[in-house]
Amino acid sequence: MRLISYRPKEIPGNFRMGLMIEENVYDLQEHYSSLAKTKKTGEHAEWIDRMVPSDPGSFYRLGEQTLKVAKETEQFIKQQGGQAVSKEVVELGTPVPEPSKIICIGKNYAAHAAEMKGEVSDFPVLFAKFSNALIGPNEDIEKPSATKKLDYEVELGIVIGREASNVKKEDALGYIAGYTIGNDISARDLQKRTPQWLQGKTLDRSTPVGPWVVSAGEIEDPSNLSIRSYINGELRQESNTSHLIYDVPYLIEFISGLITLKPGDIILSGTPDGVGVAMDPPQFLEDGDIVRLEIERIGSMENKVRKV
Amino acid sequence: MRLISYRPKEIPGNFRMGLMIEENVYDLQEHYSSLAKTKKTGEHAEWIDRMVPSDPGSFYRLGEQTLKVAKETEQFIKQQGGQAVSKEVVELGTPVPEPSKIICIGKNYAAHAAEMKGEVSDFPVLFAKFSNALIGPNEDIEKPSATKKLDYEVELGIVIGREASNVKKEDALGYIAGYTIGNDISARDLQKRTPQWLQGKTLDRSTPVGPWVVSAGEIEDPSNLSIRSYINGELRQESNTSHLIYDVPYLIEFISGLITLKPGDIILSGTPDGVGVAMDPPQFLEDGDIVRLEIERIGSMENKVRKV
Repeated sequence: MRLISYRPKEIPGNFRMGLMIEENVYDLQEHYSSLAKTKKTGEHAEWIDRMVPSDPGSFYRLGEQTLKVAKETEQFIKQQGGQAVSKEVVELGTPVPEPSKIICIGKNYAAHAAEMKGEVSDFPVLFAKFSNALIGPNEDIEKPSATKKLDYEVELGIVIGREASNVKKEDALGYIAGYTIGNDISARDLQKRTPQWLQGKTLDRSTPVGPWVVSAGEIEDPSNLSIRSYINGELRQESNTSHLIYDVPYLIEFISGLITLKPGDIILSGTPDGVGVAMDPPQFLEDGDIVRLEIERIGSMENKVRKV
Repeated sequence: MRLISYRPKEIPGNFRMGLMIEENVYDLQEHYSSLAKTKKTGEHAEWIDRMVPSDPGSFYRLGEQTLKVAKETEQFIKQQGGQAVSKEVVELGTPVPEPSKIICIGKNYAAHAAEMKGEVSDFPVLFAKFSNALIGPNEDIEKPSATKKLDYEVELGIVIGREASNVKKEDALGYIAGYTIGNDISARDLQKRTPQWLQGKTLDRSTPVGPWVVSAGEIEDPSNLSIRSYINGELRQESNTSHLIYDVPYLIEFISGLITLKPGDIILSGTPDGVGVAMDPPQFLEDGDIVRLEIERIGSMENKVRKV
């Protein structure tokens, strides 16, 4: 199941939860409403809005319940049909627009730690972004004049589905709503001018996440996915999540042992080698560049860089 | 004006916005409602809820408008009287419970940078906490078994009142809703075991902020406030915000030049010297310790440390 956030291109209003089935977009709440009509449980509008909120932020915050209902709705559409719109006429938004936390992992592929002249840490390196940084899968990455060294980082994104505190790694996958692609855009000059990276990591409208959330049930093993990035068609990063030093289950165990994870929180799991700053000579993102990211079984995402 | 978040001790429900006038608590929305009845603008309940939301998160997110109405309501209560409850029968919550960002400043007093064997940075050092860390002014600071080196840091907290992007320091004070006290509790072992501090800075229920927000108009110059911390009655930190390396107006200019600040965002401006880890021998917080923080013109806040 591919969970999207969408709105019509022609009359952009609030983003709504949708399902992408093949190349078509289905409104989640509307189709759940049709499904509810077939049940004795009723079809009261307010009740439906509480079961399956139309706005993506509320949808993820409700956690497990909404994910189950979304899956049921997808099956209903596949069996009964539904009212679809082509993906060409909609704009996709970032799938989880206002997470209470965006936790990023640094130096989580050995080859990347090496190219950054860093050592592999004895513990996962955690740092933050804020939601001001998030943009959708087709929006432009904004490059402000404050940075001359904007760089890309393709990463497997994890979206939390259940409140998680002190979770063991054996149980960790059960706390995940799904997976997405994140571009941990980094202004290297701002990131490195103080000992803490935050100011280079959370520039306004810098960080594409998308194109959708693939529900966790469809990716049994997040530790074996090929992952790539291209700049203007040139392959820059190519690896596999099997090379993660701290894999997805361990990250959930480690983080939830310190910090309670909430439904809708996003973890960006780290980037493989091949970033622009480590090239010889370094290559940074410039106005007009096209950044394409791919992760196996999730899909691809392309964003243009735009000077602002 | 002192803006609080409160609920009755006996029947704890959701926290509501209130005003503290002398030693009494007044519900903000209820008294605004009384004020509205005296005006031709009407008293429709839904309208009042949009003007002055009862919940603190929504109140601050609305920004300037709600702050003006709160001030007007305070004047109305002072002139007409109102229905007060004693502060003894209520529980105060953290005044701004779900900020979209908590941005902390590292090494912003020279004497603290020196005691931490760090250099003064050429730029403000920014790092993050998340809202999972926030607790109210009378709640216990939770000390989990994950840390053996929990430490205190008294800091002047700034609450943003208007969306701020690329604001000049000359205009910066106009973007501030008010000031509060923050304890940037830090697990030194977790903070320093990787190059990024986040994991030692955002432990669940570790970070008291409060006891209220003093509206910006009442503190004309945030750069001249005495600031102190005590552990079990022993004075540990004593300084003045005049010693901030990067003062409040400059912090707003610097941060808003990189990141759009939203109403309700919190900035913790850094701590002076005298933290426990820098003592000889180091002194960390233990179960039962009482941490008292004071900032001139704001007030004081006491929290007990509790092992969990």
